[in-house]
Amino acid sequence: MTQHTDRDYDVYELGDVELQSGITLRGARLAYKTYGTLDEDRGNAIVYPTWYSGRHWENEWLIGEGMGLDPSRYFIIVPNMLGNGLSSSPSNTPPPFNGPRFPNVTFYDQVKCQHRLVTEHFGIERLEMVLGWSMGAAQTYQWGVSYPDMMRSLLPFCGSAVTAPHNKVFLDSVAAALTADAAWQSGWYREQPQLGLRAAARVYAGWGFSQAFYWQEEWRKLGFTSYDDFLVGFWEGFFLDDRDVNNLLTMLWTWKHGDVGNTPGFDADTEAALRSIRARIIQMPAEKDLYFPPEDEQWSSQFIPGSEVRVIPGVWGHFAGGGANPEDTAFIDAAVKELLAP
Amino acid sequence: MTQHTDRDYDVYELGDVELQSGITLRGARLAYKTYGTLDEDRGNAIVYPTWYSGRHWENEWLIGEGMGLDPSRYFIIVPNMLGNGLSSSPSNTPPPFNGPRFPNVTFYDQVKCQHRLVTEHFGIERLEMVLGWSMGAAQTYQWGVSYPDMMRSLLPFCGSAVTAPHNKVFLDSVAAALTADAAWQSGWYREQPQLGLRAAARVYAGWGFSQAFYWQEEWRKLGFTSYDDFLVGFWEGFFLDDRDVNNLLTMLWTWKHGDVGNTPGFDADTEAALRSIRARIIQMPAEKDLYFPPEDEQWSSQFIPGSEVRVIPGVWGHFAGGGANPEDTAFIDAAVKELLAP
Repeated sequence: MTQHTDRDYDVYELGDVELQSGITLRGARLAYKTYGTLDEDRGNAIVYPTWYSGRHWENEWLIGEGMGLDPSRYFIIVPNMLGNGLSSSPSNTPPPFNGPRFPNVTFYDQVKCQHRLVTEHFGIERLEMVLGWSMGAAQTYQWGVSYPDMMRSLLPFCGSAVTAPHNKVFLDSVAAALTADAAWQSGWYREQPQLGLRAAARVYAGWGFSQAFYWQEEWRKLGFTSYDDFLVGFWEGFFLDDRDVNNLLTMLWTWKHGDVGNTPGFDADTEAALRSIRARIIQMPAEKDLYFPPEDEQWSSQFIPGSEVRVIPGVWGHFAGGGANPEDTAFIDAAVKELLAP
Repeated sequence: MTQHTDRDYDVYELGDVELQSGITLRGARLAYKTYGTLDEDRGNAIVYPTWYSGRHWENEWLIGEGMGLDPSRYFIIVPNMLGNGLSSSPSNTPPPFNGPRFPNVTFYDQVKCQHRLVTEHFGIERLEMVLGWSMGAAQTYQWGVSYPDMMRSLLPFCGSAVTAPHNKVFLDSVAAALTADAAWQSGWYREQPQLGLRAAARVYAGWGFSQAFYWQEEWRKLGFTSYDDFLVGFWEGFFLDDRDVNNLLTMLWTWKHGDVGNTPGFDADTEAALRSIRARIIQMPAEKDLYFPPEDEQWSSQFIPGSEVRVIPGVWGHFAGGGANPEDTAFIDAAVKELLAP
C-alpha cells in the first residue's frame, strides 16, 4: 500500500509549542512534503492536510498533471498531522512525553503549527485553497476559522467542523477495540498489540464503506476476491501498515474533540466560529458516509456565509474521499478545479 | 432492566435434536413463556421469537390489554432462541458440548424446534401470526418458508430474510471485540471477560441507534443524563445483564449465517425460498436502521408474493423495534392489529 521512499519528505523544526492542553511539546517537528514550485510572488500555494492515520503519500491520488492540484501550476504543501508517526507523535517523541504520555492535540493546535510552516518557513501570506479528507476536512474548517482572511477557497470533503455525538460513539468503539487487547498494557507495549489493531480494523470496516458497497461487492474493484480476502487484506492490512496504537489513540482524541468553536476567541460557540469563515467554500459530504452523514454538513452550512453543500453521490461512503474510486475522485477533482478557476 | 422472576417460564424437553451442522444436541431444552389462553379449537395462537441476547420478558412490551397482542384474546408463545442462556446454550449445556463446543445453530434449526413445541406440545396446527424483532424477524421469515401454509400472517420488523454482507461486517466486529480480551481464553473463561463485553457494547452502541438519535440526544427519553451516562449505563449495562460471551458468539453465528435459502429443499436459492412464502406479510424495516437498512427489505420484497414494505419512520434506528420508544411501538402495534383483523 505504501510504496514510498523512506524520508522522502522534509521536517520543519517548530521548537517548543504550547498546546491548548497547557502542555508544551518541546522540540516539536512538523513533517511535510511539497509538490510543485512556489511562484516568486508566493501566490500559488495550497495546503492539503492528512487524515486519520494517513501520511503525505496517501494524499497524492488527488495531485497530478491535468488535475486541479496540478504541481506544474500550484505549490501544494501536505503537512502530516501531529500524531501520525511522521510529525511529532507518541511513537517518535523522546521521554518523558512519549507513548501514552504524549499530550492531547487539538485541531487548533494542528493548524497553528501548519500556519507557522506556511508563513515562517515559506513566507506565504495567501493561500489559493485549503482542502482535506475526513480529519483533513476538520483541519480545513479550522484553517477557515483560525485564519479567515488568508485563503481564497476551502474544500472539506467527508468531514465536519464539529464532531457529531454519533461519530464519537464510533470513535470510542475503535478505542475500546484497540485497548481491549491485554498486550496494549496501558500503552507501554514493546510490540504493537496485534489483536487490538485487528479488532479495531474490523470495527472500522463496518463504518468505512456503506451497506450498499458491501452488498454490491465493490471491493472487487480494489482487487480483492472474497469478503474475507477484503476484510483481512484491506482492513487488517491497513491497520498493520506501520500504524502505532498510541498514535492512533492520540489522533482519535484530536478527532473526538473536533469543534471549531474551541478556537480561542469563540468561547465554545461553534455557530459563531462557522459564521466567521470568509473564504468561498464547498462542503462535500459523501451520500452514504456512515460517520459523517450529509446531515452534519447541512447543519453547519446554515451558519457559513455563502456555503454550498455538494454531496458526492454513490455507495463508497466515507471512502469516497479516499482516492480509490475513480468516479469519486473525478467528482472531487471537478470541485477543486472549480474553486481554483480565476 | 430485567425485573423478572427467576424461572417464570416453562421448558419443553426436545430430546435429541439433529442440527443442520450434523451435530446432535442431546437433551435439548426449549425455554418459553405463554401469554393468554389457548382456545378450545386452538385457533388463536401467535408465535413471537426472541432476538439477539433477548429473553422472553424482553418481548413483553408489545403484549398487553388493548394491544394487538392482547392476551385476553390471543395465546402468545414466546420461545427463547437456542443460545440465549435459557434455552439450550453454551452456558447451560453439560460437557462435552458446553462453552465454545456448543454446536452451530441455524435459523432453520431454531424454527424446527419451535414448531415441535407448537405442534407436539400444544397441538396447534394453525397460527394467526408469527412476528419478531431483529433476529426474531429472521425467525419470522424462516417460519414463513419452513411452514408456509401454517400461518395467516407474518410481521418481521427490523430484520431480514438473509443477512446482508455489511451486516456481517458489523457482526464480525462485535465478535472481534468480544474475543480481543485475553480473559476470553478461547471461550474457556471462568468469569465473563469484562473488557471484551464492554468493548462489544461500545461497538454495538454505534449501530443500535442512528446518527440523528445521538445528535438529538434522544437517550434523554430513556432517563440518561449525558453521553457517557448512556454509553456506560445503557450499553455496557446491557452487555453485563447476565449475558455470556459464548452465548453471544453462538447467536452471532446464527445471525451471520441467516439465509432462508438454506432451508432444505431450496438448495441455497434465497429467491426461491422467498417466493414460497404464502402468508400475508408486512415487512417493517426502520428508516434509519444502520445494519438492517430498508434497502434489504425492498430487495427481498420483490420475491415475496403480495408483500408490503412499511418503513417505521423516525430516528431510533434499529432500536425502533426494541420497545423503548412509544411512537415506534404504536406504529408496530398498528400493523399487528391490521394483520390480526378478521
